Amino acid sequence: MEKKPTVGYLGMGIMGSAMAGRLVDAGYPVTVWNRSRDKCAALEAKGAKVAATAQEVVESCDITFACTSDPASARSVVFGEGGVLAGISSGRRFVDMSTVDEETAKDIAPVSGSKGPALQGQLVILSAGEEALQKEAQGCFDVMGKRTFFLGEVGAGARMKLVVNMIMGINMVALCEGLAVGTQAGLKGADILEVIKEGAIASPMYGMKGPKMLEGDFASNFPLKHAQKDVRLALGLGDAVGQPMPVAAAANESFKAARAAGRGDDDFSAVYDAVRKQGLSGPPGPY
Amino acid sequence: MEKKPTVGYLGMGIMGSAMAGRLVDAGYPVTVWNRSRDKCAALEAKGAKVAATAQEVVESCDITFACTSDPASARSVVFGEGGVLAGISSGRRFVDMSTVDEETAKDIAPVSGSKGPALQGQLVILSAGEEALQKEAQGCFDVMGKRTFFLGEVGAGARMKLVVNMIMGINMVALCEGLAVGTQAGLKGADILEVIKEGAIASPMYGMKGPKMLEGDFASNFPLKHAQKDVRLALGLGDAVGQPMPVAAAANESFKAARAAGRGDDDFSAVYDAVRKQGLSGPPGPY
Amino acid sequence: MEKKPTVGYLGMGIMGSAMAGRLVDAGYPVTVWNRSRDKCAALEAKGAKVAATAQEVVESCDITFACTSDPASARSVVFGEGGVLAGISSGRRFVDMSTVDEETAKDIAPVSGSKGPALQGQLVILSAGEEALQKEAQGCFDVMGKRTFFLGEVGAGARMKLVVNMIMGINMVALCEGLAVGTQAGLKGADILEVIKEGAIASPMYGMKGPKMLEGDFASNFPLKHAQKDVRLALGLGDAVGQPMPVAAAANESFKAARAAGRGDDDFSAVYDAVRKQGLSGPPGPY
Amino acid sequence: MEKKPTVGYLGMGIMGSAMAGRLVDAGYPVTVWNRSRDKCAALEAKGAKVAATAQEVVESCDITFACTSDPASARSVVFGEGGVLAGISSGRRFVDMSTVDEETAKDIAPVSGSKGPALQGQLVILSAGEEALQKEAQGCFDVMGKRTFFLGEVGAGARMKLVVNMIMGINMVALCEGLAVGTQAGLKGADILEVIKEGAIASPMYGMKGPKMLEGDFASNFPLKHAQKDVRLALGLGDAVGQPMPVAAAANESFKAARAAGRGDDDFSAVYDAVRKQGLSGPPGPY
Repeated sequence: MEKKPTVGYLGMGIMGSAMAGRLVDAGYPVTVWNRSRDKCAALEAKGAKVAATAQEVVESCDITFACTSDPASARSVVFGEGGVLAGISSGRRFVDMSTVDEETAKDIAPVSGSKGPALQGQLVILSAGEEALQKEAQGCFDVMGKRTFFLGEVGAGARMKLVVNMIMGINMVALCEGLAVGTQAGLKGADILEVIKEGAIASPMYGMKGPKMLEGDFASNFPLKHAQKDVRLALGLGDAVGQPMPVAAAANESFKAARAAGRGDDDFSAVYDAVRKQGLSGPPGPY
Repeated sequence: MEKKPTVGYLGMGIMGSAMAGRLVDAGYPVTVWNRSRDKCAALEAKGAKVAATAQEVVESCDITFACTSDPASARSVVFGEGGVLAGISSGRRFVDMSTVDEETAKDIAPVSGSKGPALQGQLVILSAGEEALQKEAQGCFDVMGKRTFFLGEVGAGARMKLVVNMIMGINMVALCEGLAVGTQAGLKGADILEVIKEGAIASPMYGMKGPKMLEGDFASNFPLKHAQKDVRLALGLGDAVGQPMPVAAAANESFKAARAAGRGDDDFSAVYDAVRKQGLSGPPGPY
Repeated sequence: MEKKPTVGYLGMGIMGSAMAGRLVDAGYPVTVWNRSRDKCAALEAKGAKVAATAQEVVESCDITFACTSDPASARSVVFGEGGVLAGISSGRRFVDMSTVDEETAKDIAPVSGSKGPALQGQLVILSAGEEALQKEAQGCFDVMGKRTFFLGEVGAGARMKLVVNMIMGINMVALCEGLAVGTQAGLKGADILEVIKEGAIASPMYGMKGPKMLEGDFASNFPLKHAQKDVRLALGLGDAVGQPMPVAAAANESFKAARAAGRGDDDFSAVYDAVRKQGLSGPPGPY
Repeated sequence: MEKKPTVGYLGMGIMGSAMAGRLVDAGYPVTVWNRSRDKCAALEAKGAKVAATAQEVVESCDITFACTSDPASARSVVFGEGGVLAGISSGRRFVDMSTVDEETAKDIAPVSGSKGPALQGQLVILSAGEEALQKEAQGCFDVMGKRTFFLGEVGAGARMKLVVNMIMGINMVALCEGLAVGTQAGLKGADILEVIKEGAIASPMYGMKGPKMLEGDFASNFPLKHAQKDVRLALGLGDAVGQPMPVAAAANESFKAARAAGRGDDDFSAVYDAVRKQGLSGPPGPY
């Protein structure tokens, strides 16, 4: 059996640490880095090396993955001092799995999925860019995800991620408005979820998030601030290609209201609170 | 085995004729009526009696169901000359399965589902009103649907239907905006649908409608004008209970644009055309 | 000089009492009525007669005007027990100045303007319906308003009122969003108003309401619940004629949020609070 | 009388050429530059010098103004090869009058107003940044504008411009939706404009643009693509400071629809066509 490549992982957030953990479990020699080193502790305990800079990781590994929270940090990890560009050299591979705008994207393969799927290797990987690299990374992709799409030129993966997350964000606000108006009108939230489950719009997200939303459990699988960022970037994409998206624009404003209300670090389903906050306070209306 | 009650059915549209057909197949003696009699031909061929007025149906059947297209026609069937009220008498049961506003609702049990589920008896029945009636109607409900919810007082069924169809309508426009911006940005529509299928927002509706939308097949299962009507009535419900719903309001305008473009009688997925019509015509943009 | 006709006025709200007051001042013999009689006190003090029912007013006056708060009460004043229809007879004239939907409208001449203009006879009167009646009413119109438009068949006045108030409602929310984002971004609200005053969008409304909004003075000239009602009815008109209005729909949701927050009886500029409530609480953001 | 400083002007678009023209007329020695030199012809004919690069202008003038069409070109004029930074040196002043995002802004004084006011020196100048510079530029400001606001630190001018133009953009779409629904409902567009003129929302913009819109005259005073850019940048500002603006977001989508329909270079009032395009085609509806 051929020798496993050495693997680096930059960014130990919810997603990055889950994916890096799977690579360690799969027997890859893994080196990790995070801006605040303390977030590397869990991986170190698992047996991963911890590097002082992104540059050091890239220099010491055959292939390095990154998953950061937003375009700004993605950019600084790549272009900043002690960053990827400082360490990259021929034969060193770098795959950014963040959701970033395309100015930033080099070879990029963002993932679709949240904490749970990441821990279980059930992510969907949206790969694009240099095909040779994709082949080399496939072994790692197989450990991190259940399916990998090859979408063509650099940027296609980022665009796919934005489009799908935008649809997801709208579907979430749709459920929130429905639960809010329905319960205000005297229906039981649990009944609404049951009826949805039996029908054409049943989805894993509605099944998973719905009951938690009714309990007010907003522990973060996918932070709201990242969900809003994706909808905003998708609207920017619409701007670039001349596609109006009034419903996405309205949903974006609801996510912004939730962020403004201090929900940015909660799960994106916490937009439910912002939606209800706009509704009748105190006793329900006519119904 | 106990004798089957005689059953009437008012309104031979897509949904009504499918449900009445199942009742005939199940061995119920069925009498049908429709404003334009020609629409009764298929049921007559199946062995159903055809009556000249709604009143005549109600007078001659133990239990009568109705499924009409909008509050106005529902009202005229109930209150109009030769209507239900003229024929109803103690021991005669009437169950309106239309999506109507509550001023109209008497005992009402709207259904969730479209043509296919209706033909296969896979509808979800949202029953509310007098409990005794619900028990009597249960036999027929079992023939028409796969599950029946008892939601309490009169009107709860109508409200549930509106809430669920509003969420469905928003989900549909979300897919349309995503497909429109994604394809404008150089992604393949089929890839977008595949990625959705693997993820948290996979749903029967997206699986069923998505591919047809890409082919431009908008044969009607659920007419767009009825989908818009439900979103509009749900917004009215929000008005009544004091719940703002900016995303539903935006989706409603997109459905109105599709109606204005002459798509009202096509499937509600035809809103895709209205969404794209707002986008860049001719060659795609920067991407 | 010809004898003045006897004039009745139904509905002693902000607008009705102001207009009735001008008619008294102009020397017309005036009889007033209001559901809750106490609201008639001011006019009685001015020398108006007070009747026990709307019917009584219509029976005793040559021409009767009405200004009620919403379609429901307008309808009950006209069709209810002791209402206009019970008292109307040949030679008796009735002019409804409320903003009502057209099912209700008989001869109708809604007014454009709020408390101030009403007190000063500076209203704009949007008259429609039977031309003969308009001629007879002109004398009174001249006392109540600065200009009267004859818009043609019954209903045109109501439609014009809705269209203009819808535009006004949107302009108000536009100012609110601008003041909210500008002040959050470190600009002085007073500077924003000054710059507006110098430019293309300067308007009496912005000049009059802007400074009060910054002071949090929302004493009602035009109650927010009526402003939202007009936007909602205008959206209904759009529905009827097939005109999507996404911006009006978004503004309507903001007014609904303000109503849900208990601002319905304040001036419609109080939507400013609902707009800001969606924004960052506590210390401003980056700026 | 003191000697006039030598003045440079970069960007000979609608606004820039009008302002530069006034400076020439006022007796200032003016040097102009534009990416495509042909656009400098009119100023050259008036007696202005034409330079080959922005750098050359800055090097040869005491104070240089710039007015470019968007952040991208503003950035390249400042940072690009042969740009402002290459030529700037102590004692040389640079004032950017474009509407730009703040990353770009150095000392900046965007103007509020369009072609007409620019030609007549009736602009409102929103000055911010180094106070010393503002004093030196005041003479030129007096020639170009009727009033100058000093708004404080760098960026305040840009923010003020965005806020006011966002409100203006919304007001424009509000008029479009009102005219569209009103005329569909059988009202005369001219009557709607007359009623507006008599009321609280009368504004120079409505008075000026309204009649032209009814005639379909969309000759550009303020290009639609720039109006949409300003609304988009204002939404970005809202993002940065945590202020949701659902109505601005909806208006932005309408402007995007107009751009996608090829109206970007027409006057921003051409959004009227995009609004109507969403409405009922062919014969009007019920009314």
